[in-house]
Order: sequence, then C-alpha cells, then structure tokens
Amino acid sequence: MALERSSLIPALKNLATRLRIDSVKSTSEAGSGHPTTCCSAADVMATLFFAEMRFDPHDPKNVDADRFVLSKGHAAPILYAAWAEAGAFDRAELMNLRKIDSDLEGHPTPRLPFVDVATGSLGQGVCAAIGIALNARRIKSDYRTYVLLGDGETAEGSVWEAANTAAHDGLDNLCGITDVNALGQSRATMWDHDMEALSARWRAFGWHAIVIDGHDIAAILDAFAEAKRTVGRPTMILARTIKGKGVSFVEGKEGWHGKAFKKGEELDRALAELEKEFVPAPVGVNLPALIPKPAARPRAVESPKPIAPPAYKLGDEVATREAYGVALAKLGEADSRVVALDADVGNSTFSDKFEKVFPDRFFENFIAEQVMVGSAMGLAARGAIPFPSTFACFLSRAYDFIRMAAISNVGIKMAGSHAGVSIGEDGPSQMALEDLAMCRAEPNITVLYPCDGVSTEKLLALMAYHPGPAYMRTSRPKTPVIYGNDETFAIGGLKVLRESSSDSATIIGAGVTVFEALKAYDQLKASGVNVRVIDLYSLQPIDQAGLIKAGQATGGVIITVEDHYAAGGLGDAVAEAVASAGLAVTRLAVREIPRSGKPEELLDRFGISARHIVDAVKEEIANHRPAVASRQSPVVSR
Amino acid sequence: MALERSSLIPALKNLATRLRIDSVKSTSEAGSGHPTTCCSAADVMATLFFAEMRFDPHDPKNVDADRFVLSKGHAAPILYAAWAEAGAFDRAELMNLRKIDSDLEGHPTPRLPFVDVATGSLGQGVCAAIGIALNARRIKSDYRTYVLLGDGETAEGSVWEAANTAAHDGLDNLCGITDVNALGQSRATMWDHDMEALSARWRAFGWHAIVIDGHDIAAILDAFAEAKRTVGRPTMILARTIKGKGVSFVEGKEGWHGKAFKKGEELDRALAELEKEFVPAPVGVNLPALIPKPAARPRAVESPKPIAPPAYKLGDEVATREAYGVALAKLGEADSRVVALDADVGNSTFSDKFEKVFPDRFFENFIAEQVMVGSAMGLAARGAIPFPSTFACFLSRAYDFIRMAAISNVGIKMAGSHAGVSIGEDGPSQMALEDLAMCRAEPNITVLYPCDGVSTEKLLALMAYHPGPAYMRTSRPKTPVIYGNDETFAIGGLKVLRESSSDSATIIGAGVTVFEALKAYDQLKASGVNVRVIDLYSLQPIDQAGLIKAGQATGGVIITVEDHYAAGGLGDAVAEAVASAGLAVTRLAVREIPRSGKPEELLDRFGISARHIVDAVKEEIANHRPAVASRQSPVVSR
Repeated sequence: MALERSSLIPALKNLATRLRIDSVKSTSEAGSGHPTTCCSAADVMATLFFAEMRFDPHDPKNVDADRFVLSKGHAAPILYAAWAEAGAFDRAELMNLRKIDSDLEGHPTPRLPFVDVATGSLGQGVCAAIGIALNARRIKSDYRTYVLLGDGETAEGSVWEAANTAAHDGLDNLCGITDVNALGQSRATMWDHDMEALSARWRAFGWHAIVIDGHDIAAILDAFAEAKRTVGRPTMILARTIKGKGVSFVEGKEGWHGKAFKKGEELDRALAELEKEFVPAPVGVNLPALIPKPAARPRAVESPKPIAPPAYKLGDEVATREAYGVALAKLGEADSRVVALDADVGNSTFSDKFEKVFPDRFFENFIAEQVMVGSAMGLAARGAIPFPSTFACFLSRAYDFIRMAAISNVGIKMAGSHAGVSIGEDGPSQMALEDLAMCRAEPNITVLYPCDGVSTEKLLALMAYHPGPAYMRTSRPKTPVIYGNDETFAIGGLKVLRESSSDSATIIGAGVTVFEALKAYDQLKASGVNVRVIDLYSLQPIDQAGLIKAGQATGGVIITVEDHYAAGGLGDAVAEAVASAGLAVTRLAVREIPRSGKPEELLDRFGISARHIVDAVKEEIANHRPAVASRQSPVVSR
Repeated sequence: MALERSSLIPALKNLATRLRIDSVKSTSEAGSGHPTTCCSAADVMATLFFAEMRFDPHDPKNVDADRFVLSKGHAAPILYAAWAEAGAFDRAELMNLRKIDSDLEGHPTPRLPFVDVATGSLGQGVCAAIGIALNARRIKSDYRTYVLLGDGETAEGSVWEAANTAAHDGLDNLCGITDVNALGQSRATMWDHDMEALSARWRAFGWHAIVIDGHDIAAILDAFAEAKRTVGRPTMILARTIKGKGVSFVEGKEGWHGKAFKKGEELDRALAELEKEFVPAPVGVNLPALIPKPAARPRAVESPKPIAPPAYKLGDEVATREAYGVALAKLGEADSRVVALDADVGNSTFSDKFEKVFPDRFFENFIAEQVMVGSAMGLAARGAIPFPSTFACFLSRAYDFIRMAAISNVGIKMAGSHAGVSIGEDGPSQMALEDLAMCRAEPNITVLYPCDGVSTEKLLALMAYHPGPAYMRTSRPKTPVIYGNDETFAIGGLKVLRESSSDSATIIGAGVTVFEALKAYDQLKASGVNVRVIDLYSLQPIDQAGLIKAGQATGGVIITVEDHYAAGGLGDAVAEAVASAGLAVTRLAVREIPRSGKPEELLDRFGISARHIVDAVKEEIANHRPAVASRQSPVVSR
C-alpha cells in the first residue's frame, strides 16, 4: 500500500460513507433489511476490503485470495455494497436487493461467486471460517481468512466451539472482527458495550484480543496489522461501534433492528445526514484500483488415483462403521483433497483409520459437532472433500449447520455411526432414530445407508464425487458381507436380493434390517410364501421406477422395515416414490422411545425384527385382497 | 451436619470406594459401560450426596429437595450407585444395569424417579440445570441445583450458552462441578490437566471458579461451602481428577474409555485394588441416615383459571405468530406455571406480549437456542409449563435438545415462527422448511400448525395441558380469521372446510396453504369441479379416520400442499395415515432450495400456490381413472 495514511484514512472514511449510503438506499428500495446493522460495520468493512485484504474483485474464487465471511449475515447489503464498490458488479444492481430474480438475497448465499457459504443463521460463519483457514494450510497458501461477527451472535455456543478449535489449531491466519454495536434484535445484548467482558472471553479461550473504536479508521488499520503480526494464535478484534452510525435519529437506539428507512422523508433525512459525513480527501485516490491482487501461484493439478477395491469374502462379519473407516483411508490414499473431521469419537466411527495414515488431513474438533460441520462447510467451499463424522444421533446437534450446508450446496460428506436401536445397551440418548428424517428433509442431501462392507466402500467412493452435501448412515453391529467385491452400486440405486415370479410381497430394508428381511424371507419361504427382498441403500435420490416395478410385481404389497422412527425415514421415502403408481406402503419402524437392552432384544421389542416382518407379510397378504388399482392398470370400477 | 470432619472424611472416602466398586461391578456384569469415568467422579459424588445435598431418597421428587443433574451421563453407574447407597432402591438392583427390563439404563432417563431429564448427549445437563435453578426462583424455594460435567464436555458450545445465561441471570443457587480427568473418548482433552485454562474460561464468563484436587474430600467439602456462600453468580468447581482412580492399571491411561473390566482376572484385580482403598473409619457412622431432608413447605395449590377466549371477527387479518403471543399472554394470566423463553426474537415471535405482562416469568436467553430449549427442559421437569420460541428454522439449532426432550418426555411447549417460503425476502436461511420433519420424527412430540388466529389461540391452550413435548408452527404473513371464536379444536383433529356429495378430490393444507387450497376450491368450483378442503391443524397425532373417510369419499384422490420441504412434513403424515386404506397421496411441497422474493411470488415459484393445486387436482382426476381399491372395499380383481 503506497498510500500515506493521511490520504488513506479520509479516503476510507468516505468509502465507508458510500457503503452506508448504498446499504440504506438498497434496503429502502427493497422495503426490508438491516441498514442499521450495516452502518455499525461500515468503517471496518471499508478498511478490510480497501486497505487490508488481498483479492481480485474479478476473480473472487482465486484460490490464493484472502477470504471474507460475513458471519453476521443480516449485514448482507454492506457486503454487496463492498463488492460492488470493488468492481465485482455494477452498483446499480444493488437496487435489486431481495428481489426474486436477483442473487443479492436477504442474506448471503453462494449463488454469488464471492460468497463461500450461506450465512444468516448466526454463529455459523465463524465455524466455516475455521475450515477456510485450515484449507490454507492444506493447500499451502498464505491467504488469510477474515470473519465479521455481531456481538449478539457471540451468545451462540457454536462461536465458542469455534473459539476453542481455532485456538487449539493455532490458526494465526484467521482474524475475527466483532462488531460490538451493543444492540440485538429485541433488546441490548447481554454485554452492552462492556468491551472487557467480551475481550476477556476471547483471551480466556486462547485468542489474541484487541479492543478498538470501530469507527476509528487508524485504529482499525493498526488492529489488522497487529493481527497479521500475531503468531501461533487467532486474533479477535473487538470493535466498539454504534448501531445505525451516521444516522442520528437511529444511532444506538432500540427498535430499529431489521427495519429499512421508509422511502420519502425518513429515507431522505437519513441520506442527507450520511452525505454530510463525507470529509475532504485527496483527489485522484482510487482505492478499488489499489486492492492488492493475490500472487499467481501455479499449482500442480493432482488427479485422483483409482481407489483400492473392497477385499472381503462373502460372509465376513464386518460393521459398516468399520468398513467406513477402511474406505475413508483408501479414498484418502487416492485423493489428496479428502480430509476427515472428528468430534472425539474417531475410535467408534472408525475415522481413526484415516487419522492413522493421514494425520495432517485429520481435524479433531473434540466434543463439538457444530464447529465440526461448520468447518467442513468451509473446507468444502474451498475445494477440499471433507468427511465429518460422529455418532449419527449427535449430528442432530449440528442440524442448523446441515440446513445451511444444504442452502450453500457445499459438498460436505457426513457420516453418522451407531444408527438405531441396534446399538444396544447404551440406550436412547446414543441411538440415531431421526437422522434419516433430518437429512432427507433437505432436498439436495444425498442419503445413503449401506448394509455390508462392500456396499459401504463402494458408496463412500461414490458420495465423495457426487456434487453437493451427502450423508452416510452406518451401523454399530457386525453384519455379514453379502455383495461380491466387484458388485456395482449407484447413487439412486437399489438391489433386489431375492425375487421369484410368484412373489406376493416386497420387503424393503436398509442397513441392519436387510438381514431381518432376509431372515423373514427364509421363514416365509419355508411356509410356502415367496417374497421379494430389496436393499434400499440409496434413500435420496431413490430408484422410483425400481420400487414401483417391485410393488406392482408383488400384488401391491410393500412392506418397509427400518431401524429408525416411523416419520421421515425409509418408509416415507418409499411411500412417496410409489405414490404416483397409486401404491401404498406398510411401515415397520420404531414407534416409541426405546431403551437399553441387547441389540436383538431391541429389534424385536420395537417391532422391526424378522418375526414382525413375517407377521406383517402374512397380514398384508390376507388383507390385501386381490390388488390395488393403479394408474397403470385402470381395470376396475366402483 | 453434626459429624466432625475427622469422622466425616474417612467415612466419605470409604463411601466413594463403595461407589467405585459398585460402578466397576455393575458395568462388568453388564459387559459394557464407563467404569473409569465413574471412578474419577467418585469422591465428588460421595461428598455431594452424603455431605452436601439436602434430599429425601424416598421422595426424590420433593419440590424443595436439592437437585442433581448428571450432565456427563455416561457416568450413570455411579449415579445409580449413589442413589442405591442413599437407600432409594436395593443395591442388588445395580447388577441389572443396562438390561432390557431394568430402568437402570446405559445413560440416565426419567424412567427413574430421581432423574429429571435424560442425559447422555453431552453439554445438555448443564442447560437443563439452569431451568431447574430458575424454577427454584419461580416457586420461591431455596433448593440448590448441582450439575456434574465432564471436562471433555466443555468443548460443546451449549456449555458456554449455559455459562452466559446462568451468569447473566445471577444464578447463585446453581453449582457446577467439572470432573477434570483430562481424557476424552479417543484422546486427551484439548486442555489436559491445565486447570488454569479451564478456570479462566468460567471466570471470563462471569462464574465464581474454584480449582481443587477432586480426590481430596476436605477440599471438596470446602468448595461446596464456598459455592454456597457465593452471592450473585453461579459457581463452577473444577475438580482435578484421575480417570480410573483407584485401579492402578487404568489410572490416567488412554484406551479405557467406555470399557467395562472383563469378568475374571481383570475384574478381580480391579476389585482387589479398590478393596485396599478402604481406610480406618469410626464405626457406627451411617452417612445415608444423616442426609438432611428438605423442609416440609406447604404451598397453596393454585388452580388454573379459565383462559380468555379468542376475540376476533371472521375475516380479521392476523398472523398466527401474533395470535400466538396474544394466546400466550392469556394463558399466562390463567396459569401461573406458564413461563416463556426467548432467544432475542420476542418481537418477531410475539412472545414479547407475554413478557410485557409477566416479565418475571419471561426468560431471555439472547441468541442461544440450545440453552433456551435445555432450560425449558429443566423447567418442565420441575413443574413449570415452559414455552420456548424462536424462528422455527432456528429450533434446528437445538434439535439434539429436542431429541433428548422427547427421550425425557418432558412437557416443553415449543413454538417456531416464520415457517416456510411465505416469510419472503429474508431468504432461505430464515425459512423453516424442515421443522415439521424434525419434530414429527420424534414419536411423542405433538405437532400443531394453525392457520388462523382462533385456531392458534385454541390450540395453544390445548398444547399447554397435553402431556409431553409439543411444537406449534406459526407463520409470518397475516391470514384471515376463518373460525368463529366458539369453534372447538382437538389435538389429533382436523377441520373439513369445504365439502359436497360430489367431491372428486381432497385437498389438505395447513397454515398458509389452507388459503391457497381455498382459492383453488373457488377456481375449481367455477370450472365445475367440486373438491373437499381440509385444514390439517394437528399433524401429530393425526385424524387417521377422518383422512381415510375424506380420501375414500373423493375417489381416492388426495392432494397435500405444504409450505415445507417434501420429506417428513404434512404430505408424509397424511400418506402414512391413509396407507392402511390402500390410499396414496400426491404431495405439493417445496422441492428445491428457495430464495429471496415476495411471499406470493415464492409460493408460486416453489409450487405450492393455488394455481399449482388446481393443476394437480385436474391432473390427478384425469389420471386417477375409476378408483383405488382399498382393504375396506375389496371389490376388484386383477
């Protein structure tokens, strides 16, 4: 930066005023939004974008560019204003804020090329920033990661998960700024302007903390410089600001959160005041033109190698969670972009098999699922292929992050072990019985649920390269290998394990219930009843045609059985898939809160063992007199 | 406590040894569990239960008894051992640990009368403890609340939400103990035995922190006394301990988490070592007999008063979120047990209408949804009727808490506002599109979704007194009042809004889509097609008979329409309900990640507006040639 501070500071001040004006105008034009939240952050944003960060406005995805995450996503208008000011797009576009055909949404999403992850659910951006900072290490880049938080946002526990993790990892390439404007949505924050209360927290968590006046450009410049000099730990700049700064009638006032100025007198008055904020500045200073560009660093493109195939024998007893670990280590060998994230259960999920081979690509988050998933979002956004895993039930801790990952459409590859009552004695707190519902609810999450070692390995390789977020459910008990090592699988596929030309029902299971279905098959066969058995290893997408075909071939009798609660899981997935053919589904699932016990006792007690399947088949065949009508066979009349 | 310390300390030491022995024996008998985690906590547990807490082992639910929450739920065996030692049940029962017909589950659940909330998902018990401590204020009791955390557990962000909230609320009746045994499941914790790193965190968050040797009974006694003397803020006792204390070959060693000693030589050796820990102690000291009982405090029983009825006119435009606030304030007037919890959006959810009238029963958690729900769990467990509310999408932040509330079967009454794309311009991060799936997945959560002001008020009153957890979904836009103030509703009910004897389809909506369905009805009627329209305000439980009846009366054509993603919501709920009659359902729902825009634009863009309903009805009627067969009408053959 060749510019003298005497020129730089007034130029930045004026740029901050322009950002305020753009934020105020665009929100008034939209009729909604958060102008006062933008105004408190304007001096920090101007200084960060036009005197600190190294980036190319015309190449926002440059791998070596400094990154910025707006954790306080409701300040989106000033983010857009800053990028427009930098030249990424035409400022006139700002007036389309929040319109249905503009990508300038109410809160930032990666529809915009300069947004890595969607924000707007507070406390998440800072977690993603950790993944982005870790990615710099992964690709050996010296880019820095900046993240702007709101002060109210720091009540979110995820912020402190992030604080622990970033300090533990010594992320000195990460710099946070908290916009301490002292006002939340409904009232003052817990801390008001007590800067000591906030800085003491960050210091206690191992960060370098700097308290400044967030409207003092010189202080902001100094703080960024100090952060850059800080070695071995991340920095949090706590910027004391005034919400609505620059518009006297809202400055520091409650009741103005998330309110645009009304067009007309109110807006005019606000703009008139902001116009008066411009200060004399040297002419000819063009800050956007002075933004330092990231160095062009040629990197060898590493092509993924073939993945070592499964090496089981039919009948081998292996838990899918263990096969997951084996597969992850193999995938890591084949592709250096693959990283794994753990929440202190790597020796249960078997992600420790990856850690043993690739300790540098294994990120331990200790018992903190939110930052694990959030960090994975950041890593995925920057080109890694991250596999965060924990007990499936504890992924529910990060559901809001999973939701935002879906909105971001980032390729996080989640795995949840210890699914269902089949975990046994540990009891319901450790059993995932809603994880399929949780992940299936998001329309763009791929949901896979293998039953044996071979399918686990094959599906893991597929999910790694399938675009967008994905979830694999694994089980605790050992199950026999039923597929040959050469068997092929597809996302959106299924396997028909048993069939004949005289099947009178289709039984559909996944994971451990495949084996209950196979036991039921044997028992039914012994009593002269043939049934079709399907392993539905891909729940989303789902093989609609295959399911309808099976249902129609078996008299319309379809019975699903799942180690999951009844709503939102395998049964519902099948039911929707076959509905267009007029077929209905009988669901066996866990229908009450379970308890501790032996796995086989629990499968039976909660209605999903072979015995229950046999009973259901017999009952359905008896009830299901001749047939269901379907659109495809309009042969009946009432 | 009349006992001299010279007698008390050796007696407690020996009691701790007994607790260790019971924990080791019971887990070995079960073949699984966490004996080493119990051993580190034994001295704290012995001192807490037999020299600090005031309770009646034979009346564990006494409203004035001190409360204990085992936040590190995997130490369940020592909790059970302590209660058995106190005389709550026969020690022999400990040997049934983790068996299917014993309530001594792998992790504690309220099947046991001395457990308030289920634990086992780390970082939750401390949040529940806040609710329990707040409850003491509510009922004007001087009982104290104790909560035991693991050190690894403090990586969970929810612990720091709790830390903020308890300090902000000045809960000096709350005393936490962290069992700092330095070992997590897969490795050492982030902090190892750095007691300063941990205590600095609690101090920074406003707690009184005391560091002690957690195996020094005198130090533990002193710390509890100091905590009791501490005014205006909660206390955290950081107890430095050794995992596996008392069994030399596992003490402080990695690789022993969650492993029972093998029966035979390994167990025998462990027990032999523990037996040697007994110290000479005065004879005749019976610690359980010395436990101070809570004072008998007669309380006036306050009967709930009648709730003021709704006071709308048909056609009034009112958002259900606003009606929720009105109803909550009325309910609060009628029943003093009702409390409300907020996460800094009370002016959007309208829970601020309650706050204005009952500020003392309104608990502000700022932007921290986990502690809001966790605290509600604690309040519910102690007799309050808590209504935690926030934007519905942000309840996903607390999904693991909701899951544990379901396991606990505690009566938390959640409300989520701003459901669906109909919120408009704020964009997808603020839209709840998976909340119905999330809550419906839990089999014991009541799920309600009113469409107008009257039904909101009536359903809120019902949910308050319906046992167990419940969720109400409210909407942002204003909708017309369609029910008279005298209309009656039922949990598990529905309303048929339009019907004729010649209906050729059933349209089922809820919330905002009821009005799209009514618009579609008018358009279809104008083109000569009669349809039935149902307001499915109760999704769980659901009126199966009513839905089947409607489906069968309308040629088997059922179309659902919901402002929610396709999986796990209203469509799936209806589909399962009607499946037993062989009926299938056509679902209109949001099937991709939405974006910012005007509410009506979004309803249309994402396929759930009246136009789409009309199209679907026409298509289904055309496709759905004569009829579906069903079990009830076995009239067809193939």
